[in-house]
Amino acid sequence: MASTVPELKPSSRLLLGPGPSMVHPRVLRAMSTPLLGHLDPEFLVIMNEVQGMLRTVFQTENPFTIAISGTGSAGMEAALVNVVEPGDKVIVCVAGVFGARLAEIVGRCGGQLVKLEVPWGQVFTLDRIEEALRKEGRVRAVAIVHAETSTGAQQPLDGLGKLCRDHGALLVVDAVTSLGGVPVEVDRNGIDVCYSGTQKCLSCPPGLAPLTFSPRALELVRARKHKVQSWYLDVSMIADYWADGKRAYHHTAPISMVYALRESLRLVLEEGLEPRFARHRRHSAAVMAGLAELGCTPNAAEGHRLPSLNCVRTPEGVNDEAPIRKALLADHGIEIGGGLGPLVGKIWRIGLMGESSRQEHVLAVLAALEQALARTGRAVAPGAAVSAALKTYAR
Amino acid sequence: MASTVPELKPSSRLLLGPGPSMVHPRVLRAMSTPLLGHLDPEFLVIMNEVQGMLRTVFQTENPFTIAISGTGSAGMEAALVNVVEPGDKVIVCVAGVFGARLAEIVGRCGGQLVKLEVPWGQVFTLDRIEEALRKEGRVRAVAIVHAETSTGAQQPLDGLGKLCRDHGALLVVDAVTSLGGVPVEVDRNGIDVCYSGTQKCLSCPPGLAPLTFSPRALELVRARKHKVQSWYLDVSMIADYWADGKRAYHHTAPISMVYALRESLRLVLEEGLEPRFARHRRHSAAVMAGLAELGCTPNAAEGHRLPSLNCVRTPEGVNDEAPIRKALLADHGIEIGGGLGPLVGKIWRIGLMGESSRQEHVLAVLAALEQALARTGRAVAPGAAVSAALKTYAR
Repeated sequence: MASTVPELKPSSRLLLGPGPSMVHPRVLRAMSTPLLGHLDPEFLVIMNEVQGMLRTVFQTENPFTIAISGTGSAGMEAALVNVVEPGDKVIVCVAGVFGARLAEIVGRCGGQLVKLEVPWGQVFTLDRIEEALRKEGRVRAVAIVHAETSTGAQQPLDGLGKLCRDHGALLVVDAVTSLGGVPVEVDRNGIDVCYSGTQKCLSCPPGLAPLTFSPRALELVRARKHKVQSWYLDVSMIADYWADGKRAYHHTAPISMVYALRESLRLVLEEGLEPRFARHRRHSAAVMAGLAELGCTPNAAEGHRLPSLNCVRTPEGVNDEAPIRKALLADHGIEIGGGLGPLVGKIWRIGLMGESSRQEHVLAVLAALEQALARTGRAVAPGAAVSAALKTYAR
Repeated sequence: MASTVPELKPSSRLLLGPGPSMVHPRVLRAMSTPLLGHLDPEFLVIMNEVQGMLRTVFQTENPFTIAISGTGSAGMEAALVNVVEPGDKVIVCVAGVFGARLAEIVGRCGGQLVKLEVPWGQVFTLDRIEEALRKEGRVRAVAIVHAETSTGAQQPLDGLGKLCRDHGALLVVDAVTSLGGVPVEVDRNGIDVCYSGTQKCLSCPPGLAPLTFSPRALELVRARKHKVQSWYLDVSMIADYWADGKRAYHHTAPISMVYALRESLRLVLEEGLEPRFARHRRHSAAVMAGLAELGCTPNAAEGHRLPSLNCVRTPEGVNDEAPIRKALLADHGIEIGGGLGPLVGKIWRIGLMGESSRQEHVLAVLAALEQALARTGRAVAPGAAVSAALKTYAR
């Protein structure tokens, strides 16, 4: 069997799902660069450059700001296994798949889980979290998802860092679907531990997880009573590997992926954070206007909708949405996401992240959806969705 | 700072250290291929193809044969966290850095560690392991390194699988520096769990860890009393993600790295395993003959020397070897490895793995070493090392 595997010839895709997003040709080219050794002096410079750019994107001064050698989920695990010791109480805010995953991992760390829940698509108020902190007494950490990829809701972070600090708890934030597309502002928000993935708003292929720890969080890790259960994700060793002038061998960094991340971060900074955030908001507004014309309603609570991942309820009367997504892929090469868990069959998730967040992609996905819906026999006014989007751009 | 990061312009390198090895242009090109989504039907086919080729290279029929989304060390951790439950007795054979790492991770899994040791560079006899198995009673697993990257020793595996099975223990084998360059023969050797890295004899960039579990090992994982402590590396969930027709979402596979691994495996199978193993032996013999002319002696025990990673004691009188390695890098762009741990300053590790294992590279590194040694004032006969290598090729 094996010897008959043919040449790699994937179809061309417009990636407008929950990730990966489109990758800039400069990033693809960077990945095809011949390799340096991972302890080569030139590679050590590259690691420093990546750290510096990640600090800018995270909006932090944290010295420990690196990329974990794994995908976003490895970033989540790295955040928790380092912070949580057996028996530690951890408040986890669950409003979707990724909040639930945080809770699951806290359990696997031997943490004492305090789960707060709101309906999927909603966000948590500061009061709710404060109430829990008051009630629970000594809490090691509060873990919350900034951009819930399963619902499209954006959790406000204002005041949360201070609240956690006042109660002696660390604030752990999942910024997988926000970093580089939505302000995360690690320092201003008082976030102690924040992780992301490369394949969302940074528009780099999946494979690395940007991660930052505040000095306070790192101190707590270094003062742990028990060893971190994961050797691979032990932040105190990883810190020594990434520390300039130290570079204690830990594992072999995924060199080509680091090249890719470096190039994608250069692109982010060439554009500038504020213009990039504004671009994400602009195209989100346009696609949401068009989707409304198609009978789709926003899934996340008003005022808390992620511009990077546009989640909408499928139009009334569409009882089986999978064939529509399949038609988009087959007829137009466009990928969008469906729902996860209780939202299977009920929502579409349209990612306009990084390179995917462009006017031509907004028009393409609206036109394709309109045609696919018309083909199911629905009354759809031709061009109405695209027109609505263009009206938004004209404002 | 961040906005001033310049264009990526790494120097050209001949990678003859302990990894990464040279990467074939076809693999570099594969990585620059625009991405499919990780749940795209076309990507699912690619995952199947990779699994099939990995089975061929591992020489196994194990259905669970995949690539972990992390580097070789993540493969090691995946092997152990799934197999070891708290309190389980695990025999770990330590003869170098990577055996010691296995022991460290067993401890972090809550396993009861039984450490067997031989001097670095030596290998374990079957008798030694049998004695330990008899003495210890119920043992969950025996973990051993096939190719010890820190010493250049190759551990024989003959009979070990049967021995473990007779004692009801799983056999866990580290094949990071052997897979694709030295026969691993998972099924014939009765290995239950075997992992590797991509950046060694497979000549793919680092970032993935090939991993295979025997059905017996997978059954034990599924029957665990405690959840696997790592969510990211939980093999029962990863199995569902890689299982054809199932593809339960777990994490986002590092798509570009999977493209790279697919292409590097195609290259391995185009060459054929046996010719590839013979090529590694041939160039190893040549480089070792040349190194002997330079006054280097083999580090690993006679008859147990890895052809993929040629480790030699530095010549007598060379008290500081680091400047010589630096000269190789600065003057010739050639990377070789120094020693780790107690072998710092005492050995060189010359990797001839995958694409690095070629006649021109053997000649290049010998010539460069000869010149660098001559420059330190040693009496070196010009051309003697290269001639010795060429004589070996002529045999």
